[in-house]
Amino acid sequence: MSNWYLQNGKDSDVVISSRIRLSRNLEKYPFTSRCTEKDFQEILNEIKEIVPSLGYGLKYIELKDIDDITKVSLVEKHVISPDFAMKENVKGAILVNDEENICMMLNEEDHIKLQVFSSGQELENLMNLAIEIDEKLGELVTYSYSKQFGFLNVSPTNVGTGCRASVMVHLPALSLTGNINKVLQIVNHFGMNVRGLYGEGTQSGGDVYQISNNQCLGLTEAEIIKSLKTITEKVIEQERLARKYLTKNPLELEDRVYRSYGILKYAARLGADECKKLLSDVKLGTDLGIIKELDDNKISKLNLYTKPGNLQKYLGKELDGYNRDIKRAEVAKQILE
Amino acid sequence: MSNWYLQNGKDSDVVISSRIRLSRNLEKYPFTSRCTEKDFQEILNEIKEIVPSLGYGLKYIELKDIDDITKVSLVEKHVISPDFAMKENVKGAILVNDEENICMMLNEEDHIKLQVFSSGQELENLMNLAIEIDEKLGELVTYSYSKQFGFLNVSPTNVGTGCRASVMVHLPALSLTGNINKVLQIVNHFGMNVRGLYGEGTQSGGDVYQISNNQCLGLTEAEIIKSLKTITEKVIEQERLARKYLTKNPLELEDRVYRSYGILKYAARLGADECKKLLSDVKLGTDLGIIKELDDNKISKLNLYTKPGNLQKYLGKELDGYNRDIKRAEVAKQILE
Repeated sequence: MSNWYLQNGKDSDVVISSRIRLSRNLEKYPFTSRCTEKDFQEILNEIKEIVPSLGYGLKYIELKDIDDITKVSLVEKHVISPDFAMKENVKGAILVNDEENICMMLNEEDHIKLQVFSSGQELENLMNLAIEIDEKLGELVTYSYSKQFGFLNVSPTNVGTGCRASVMVHLPALSLTGNINKVLQIVNHFGMNVRGLYGEGTQSGGDVYQISNNQCLGLTEAEIIKSLKTITEKVIEQERLARKYLTKNPLELEDRVYRSYGILKYAARLGADECKKLLSDVKLGTDLGIIKELDDNKISKLNLYTKPGNLQKYLGKELDGYNRDIKRAEVAKQILE
Repeated sequence: MSNWYLQNGKDSDVVISSRIRLSRNLEKYPFTSRCTEKDFQEILNEIKEIVPSLGYGLKYIELKDIDDITKVSLVEKHVISPDFAMKENVKGAILVNDEENICMMLNEEDHIKLQVFSSGQELENLMNLAIEIDEKLGELVTYSYSKQFGFLNVSPTNVGTGCRASVMVHLPALSLTGNINKVLQIVNHFGMNVRGLYGEGTQSGGDVYQISNNQCLGLTEAEIIKSLKTITEKVIEQERLARKYLTKNPLELEDRVYRSYGILKYAARLGADECKKLLSDVKLGTDLGIIKELDDNKISKLNLYTKPGNLQKYLGKELDGYNRDIKRAEVAKQILE
């Protein structure tokens, strides 16, 4: 399993993953909101053509050739956006490599959303990779670019560098100590967005939050990374302090995380939401060295394969909600054994 | 471990244990309510003297020589009554054998409460044993007896044979299906008492109930046994029907009993009441063959050593409530491993 989302990264006790997303548009086509079907098709054709020159092991796959379960599984891995997965009347495609750490969405909000991913906190390396791919791509196509504003994109907040950097953080101790909202407000005040598990407008599940820069204009990529990194380090610090505080009552914490472990291991059926909550406890317990039966790889697998889409993908069949709950419990048991 | 309460008996999926209790008084002393301290002492002296002749490996132990934890542990094993354990101003004693399946309480409500115990449903054999001991004892002391009424005892409901037969039953499925009260009412209508875990006035814990005859007068011992046995068999039948009904939804049942198993195995602290509820589920799961990790002996041990008194007895030290909860979880884990 070489996929990035099953690997361990820096500060992975708090930072689950990092992502850089660059929005780019092609000069010769209108923005997606004004594209005709023909435009969409030509955009895809143009990019499909340059795939071999671009390299990185990227493969071109059209949305229409991706089945629904795979789409959901890609959303769950954060490799494509929920909006993109649900597009029906737009010709979309992805360029993705086997490791799934590089994935471009074509004809999402912008013509190109170039994304690179890593487990843990890896913003600088990711930015270097994103810039490298972006420069190579920029030699193969002509971006919509203004000397005054920078890259021109659909959303005004994406104009400029078109760069969104984000980290996915696990903040169970801040939740347990009741300090989560205070910390997230501070993050907001520092010009960062805090969002749920699948980006804007989605709910946090299992104490996982996405923190990203909310400004693309007037800042260099390096500045964006620097400010996000600074804030992330503050959040890591606060979460670790909260964990330290919780370990002052080790018994209560042990009881909580091991009860969740016990239920996860022995339940005969598990709802998706309950499972996320249990996994949040179990990850916390493992990160604090309380739970000894697990490691980061197993935690990553548990997190991934208990999600509805990836569960079905893993089992290779479509399942209704009732049977997903049963199979989710079975798969959790398998991974725990 | 040859003690009766750790053994398996007949119908032990429903009937945890059986007990026969015979109330007897000595002719030459007043009833306990009118005994002087001297009377109490003389009663003890008289019975202590005949212990060697009585046999059965019985040992004479005075209440004042039993520490509080041991008293509680004996109550939890149903070997002595809660009232007797709490007597402070009365000279009391017990005659008990190593297996603890024979225990006489001296100067409880009556001068002598002869009790015999067995796991499972063993009323006839127990009655034979009780009668045998009673006859032997009757040759060594002179009982208070009336040709018209039979044995004369403190409580009018104990006059006659002075015989109380009881079974301790585990009725989790009747609870889950909501039929428990209906069944217990019927048991009442058939002239039986239904009581909580430690007899009259106590609450049921973990779906365990005591069923006993409420009439001693005008019935022979054989008749008492026969009617209790008939009622017990009806209760067993109803509980087994309810279990069969529950197994129509095997997943729900499996989920319930295995979640309880998981918590029991991994919790870092367990309150006494929660533990009883978990053990009720776990016993049900084991009896139905759903839980494969356990056997009846382990269930018996779990039931016994997680009770406050026996927990402390087992660990050989006094513990406050906070530490009992921690140690209860540890002992449960040990037995489960």
